[in-house]
Amino acid sequence: MTQIKIIKIGGNIIDSTMELEQFLLDFALIDGPKILVHGGGAMASQMAKSMGVEPQMHQGRRITDAETLKLVTMVYAGWINKSIVAKLQQKGVDALGLSGADANTVPAVMRSKEPIDFGYVGDVDPEKINVRLILNLISRGIVPVFCAITHDENGTLLNTNADTMASSIAIALSKEYSTSLIYCLEKKGVLNDVNNPDSVIPLINSRNYQILKNSGVVKDGMIPKLDNAFNAIDNGVYQVCIKHASNLSNDFGTILKK
Amino acid sequence: MTQIKIIKIGGNIIDSTMELEQFLLDFALIDGPKILVHGGGAMASQMAKSMGVEPQMHQGRRITDAETLKLVTMVYAGWINKSIVAKLQQKGVDALGLSGADANTVPAVMRSKEPIDFGYVGDVDPEKINVRLILNLISRGIVPVFCAITHDENGTLLNTNADTMASSIAIALSKEYSTSLIYCLEKKGVLNDVNNPDSVIPLINSRNYQILKNSGVVKDGMIPKLDNAFNAIDNGVYQVCIKHASNLSNDFGTILKK
Repeated sequence: MTQIKIIKIGGNIIDSTMELEQFLLDFALIDGPKILVHGGGAMASQMAKSMGVEPQMHQGRRITDAETLKLVTMVYAGWINKSIVAKLQQKGVDALGLSGADANTVPAVMRSKEPIDFGYVGDVDPEKINVRLILNLISRGIVPVFCAITHDENGTLLNTNADTMASSIAIALSKEYSTSLIYCLEKKGVLNDVNNPDSVIPLINSRNYQILKNSGVVKDGMIPKLDNAFNAIDNGVYQVCIKHASNLSNDFGTILKK
Repeated sequence: MTQIKIIKIGGNIIDSTMELEQFLLDFALIDGPKILVHGGGAMASQMAKSMGVEPQMHQGRRITDAETLKLVTMVYAGWINKSIVAKLQQKGVDALGLSGADANTVPAVMRSKEPIDFGYVGDVDPEKINVRLILNLISRGIVPVFCAITHDENGTLLNTNADTMASSIAIALSKEYSTSLIYCLEKKGVLNDVNNPDSVIPLINSRNYQILKNSGVVKDGMIPKLDNAFNAIDNGVYQVCIKHASNLSNDFGTILKK
């Protein structure tokens, strides 16, 4: 089975011109089929602030109202996506930027308004991803670059979590490829000791993941990330790597496997 | 030879939710291969104002500085492009939004800084357009939706005139298709009498175009539009139509032919 890598970067890399440039250089050197999924970064919040758009929150969680949807679509699908595409083209990568609306690659469903109305937020069903089109682009040597904006197939754009966007695409493609999903974080991997940035756990399987959770080694924001990763593995993804973007071209990081 | 229609809409339609919706319904009904090219509209200027970005002008002409480039990329390639794509998908059109950077579809060259430095503005050479990719997408039933953002193949995005973006794509495709280029304007066509909106000249060829220019019937902003149209015709485009968007599905308007 041919291998494919789906690599997700977040705001910490996007917000640093130097780190993004180095990451894109490393990304360009990866052989074989690959897909980039990018998150947001600070620009949307900065713009909202300078335009006087107040962030809408509910119990500490962000609500995507109509104004925020416009802003994130502009920043994610517009500036960030096209900047990355132009920079990859410069590096010899035949990048093509996509939102989930484009060629209906990633349709989504607006999240239920109960118990909390998150506004224009979409959840993706990997079964509905337009794998045929993505495969066709890849077969032509094109590297899809996805932002995490989707649509409801009814004319409405939706803001989507970039981690689940990446894992949904990875799950969808794992029928055709041996799929590695790589999350680039600020940390070097899953840490044994949060105070020691080098205490990276090299390998976690679903059994010792339960032990790490129960013992409190894995906690807080890492839990939804790893739950999402193991969900991808349970649904056909070969492996998930969690690493720092600067280690893209080496083996340093945490590998999650069945 | 198979026919293709390249249709360009400008800000006057984009800024009106009702007109845009009706235009997209009419666009959806067009049979056969088609491409949509869209301009900007008022949103970028409104955003610039609300963010305190001053428009940079030189002798009455707009300069695209770094801040303006970010804004127009966000608005054109982000919100407008993806909104149109989502609305076309809803109407059963398999739309895919593209900037010129995506898959290097429309590379451009930054305009010379002499005599005037327009900043991040790009001019397109139709010979360099990635016709193969556009043809492949069309052969799969996909409808490309282009914003007028291009790149210099060196990592820099460029703001491009949407009229020439449309005519360049039309010229590039006319080796493979019998190409009709349709400009949707606020007017119903080229008028014999600017005070009579219904005095549409049905047909202009390059010979009577000279007469209309010399007599002053065609003047001001219409001259660069028609020069650009006749340049497209001289370079292989079968015909150019100038019409109001509401007449997309009928024959009302001005046809320009060799």
